[in-house]
Amino acid sequence: MATIKDIASKLGISVSAVSKSLNGASDISEELRQLVLDTAVELGYSTKRSRKQEHRKLALFIENMDYASENDFGYDIILGFKQNAFKNNWDVDMIPVNPTFQLQEKYDTYMLKCGYSGAFIVGFALNDEWMKQFATTTMPTVLFDNFIRNNPNTCYVGTDNYEGIDTAIEHLYKLGHEKIAFLNGSLHSMVSEQRQDAFLQGMAGHGLKVHDELLAYGYYVADSAKYHVPAFLENGATAIMCGNDLIASGVVEECKARGLKVPEDISVIGFDDIPIASSMTPALTTVNQNRLELGKGGYAMLTSLISGIAISKALMRPKLVVRKSTAKAKASK
Amino acid sequence: MATIKDIASKLGISVSAVSKSLNGASDISEELRQLVLDTAVELGYSTKRSRKQEHRKLALFIENMDYASENDFGYDIILGFKQNAFKNNWDVDMIPVNPTFQLQEKYDTYMLKCGYSGAFIVGFALNDEWMKQFATTTMPTVLFDNFIRNNPNTCYVGTDNYEGIDTAIEHLYKLGHEKIAFLNGSLHSMVSEQRQDAFLQGMAGHGLKVHDELLAYGYYVADSAKYHVPAFLENGATAIMCGNDLIASGVVEECKARGLKVPEDISVIGFDDIPIASSMTPALTTVNQNRLELGKGGYAMLTSLISGIAISKALMRPKLVVRKSTAKAKASK
Repeated sequence: MATIKDIASKLGISVSAVSKSLNGASDISEELRQLVLDTAVELGYSTKRSRKQEHRKLALFIENMDYASENDFGYDIILGFKQNAFKNNWDVDMIPVNPTFQLQEKYDTYMLKCGYSGAFIVGFALNDEWMKQFATTTMPTVLFDNFIRNNPNTCYVGTDNYEGIDTAIEHLYKLGHEKIAFLNGSLHSMVSEQRQDAFLQGMAGHGLKVHDELLAYGYYVADSAKYHVPAFLENGATAIMCGNDLIASGVVEECKARGLKVPEDISVIGFDDIPIASSMTPALTTVNQNRLELGKGGYAMLTSLISGIAISKALMRPKLVVRKSTAKAKASK
Repeated sequence: MATIKDIASKLGISVSAVSKSLNGASDISEELRQLVLDTAVELGYSTKRSRKQEHRKLALFIENMDYASENDFGYDIILGFKQNAFKNNWDVDMIPVNPTFQLQEKYDTYMLKCGYSGAFIVGFALNDEWMKQFATTTMPTVLFDNFIRNNPNTCYVGTDNYEGIDTAIEHLYKLGHEKIAFLNGSLHSMVSEQRQDAFLQGMAGHGLKVHDELLAYGYYVADSAKYHVPAFLENGATAIMCGNDLIASGVVEECKARGLKVPEDISVIGFDDIPIASSMTPALTTVNQNRLELGKGGYAMLTSLISGIAISKALMRPKLVVRKSTAKAKASK
C-alpha cells in the first residue's frame, strides 16, 4: 500500500504538505488538497479515517473489462469514481464478479450483508443474472452503459452515442464523403444498438443515403475487419466509421493489406479514444469518451440516487478528436 | 421576508430549534436540519450568511412559465433547485426574462457582470435570442427541457419522455386498446418532438398500428381538443393519449359534450400530473413528472458542470399514475 512519502515524491512536494492536505489544514489551498487526494486514490493510499467509517461504503462491481493498467478502458472510469467518492469520505470496494458469483449471491442480499449504501456496475452483459435483479432492486445502483426500465433506484451513465456518431458523420460529410460504411460492434449490446440507430439518424440528418451493403455488425475486436472491409471496398465506400478503436485498428490494417492508403484512399474513424488511437499509424481520428468524467459522473449520479433524486439516464459529452486517418473524399478532390 | 418565527410556526417547533438548525448546532438531527432548511427556502427566509457570500451565486432565468403559486408548473422546479442550492451555501437569484431583455443583454456578459457561477434556464423557446448564445457560452448552464448540441458547458435536464409515453401505451395495451390516438402539444418544441417519436416507438414496441388520422399536433392548452377529438372519435379511437394534462382536460370535456363517458366509452391519459389532474372528474390517469426532483436534478447537474464534469443530458424517471380516466377498451369487454 502507498505511503504519504509515495504521494509526496510523485507530486514533488514535502511530506508535511501531503499530510496537511490529507488532514484538511487551513493553510493548504483547496486546489492542492484536491490534487493530493486525487493522487492518494490513484496510488492506492488509504487513511485510517476512511477505514473507520464502516457505514460510508460504496461497491464497484466490474466484469468483462480490463482495468489494471492505464491503457485499459476501465482504468480511468474506476479512478474517476474513486477520486470523487474519496473526496466525500466514501470508501469504495472494487469487486470483480463473474456469472457464477452472480448465481451464488443475490444482489440486494449481498449489498445489505456487506453494508454498502450503493453500487456502480461496470461491464455487465445483458444476459447476466444480476441484470434481471436490477429491475427490482431497492439499492441505489448506477450502471455504466446499461439501462434498467422503470426502476427509480437505478440510473444509466454513459457517453452520448448519438452526438458522438453524428459529429463523426458531420466531419466526413464536410470532407465530401457520401458513401460511408459502418462496421459496428457486437449485436445484442445496448451500446451497439444505440450507435447503429445514431448512424442511421446521423446519415439522414446530413441528407446522406444509407447503403445496406455498407452496414455490418461484427465484434468489438480488430479481427472483425477482415470479414467486412472487402465488401465495403467493393461497394465503393470512401470512409469507414467503426464501432470502436479496436475495430478501426483492424480496418486500417485490412485496407493497408489491400494496397490502399489511409487516409488518401479511404478515411477511417474510431470510437472511444483509447491510448492506442493516438499511437497508431496513421494516428486515428476518433470519438473520445472521457472515461475519468464517466467515473466521476457515475459517482455524482449514485449520490443523487442515494439522496432520493431519481435520475434515470445521465449522458456525458463525446468529443471528436481529429487526427490523421481522415481526409477529403477521393472523388471530390 | 419570512422570519425564524414563521419557520417555527409552520413546522410546529420552537424558535430556538429553528435557530440551532440554521446554525448547524450539533444537538440537532440532520433530518431536522434539512427540513428546516427546506422550509426556510420555501418561505423565502434569507440568512445573513448567504447574503455575505457574494461569490457563491447562481442565476435562475425563467420565461413562458407560471411559478407563483403551488399549482403552477414551475413552482416545485424552482423550489427543488433552491432547496438543494441553499443546503450547499449557494445563493440563487430568480430572474424572469423576456425576448426584449435577451436582445438588450448578452448572456455571458450579464452572467459575469452579476458574478454568477452558473445558471439554470427554465421555459425558454427554441427561437429565443439567448438560445443561440448558449451554443458557445463558456458559463456552466443547465437547461430545463432544452438541449444544446456540442457545447460541453451546457446540460439538458428533463423527464424521460420515451419511458413516460411507453409506460402509458403499455397501460392502454394491457387494457385491450389498439386504436390509440395521440393529441400532442405544439410543433417546434423539443419536448413535443420527443413525445411524438416516443409515441411511434411505443406503439411499434407493443405491436400496435399507428393510424395517421389518429395523430395530431395542437397546442399545450385545453382548447386544442375541440379541433381534433371529433375526427379521432369518427375514426374509431378507443383511447386518447395527450401531450399534457391541460390538453387531456379539454379532451375529457369534449368527449362528455359529445355524450361519451370517460372511461367507459373512451380512455384518456395526460402528461405532467399537475395538481388539476387529481381533482378532475374523472381523476386523470397521467404520466407524472416529479418537478421537485427536476429542480434538484438541475442543481446537481449545474454543480457537476461547475466542477468540470461535462454531463450533456440528465433524464428523470417519469411515473404512470393510474386514476379513473382509463378502463378496458369497449370492444374487448
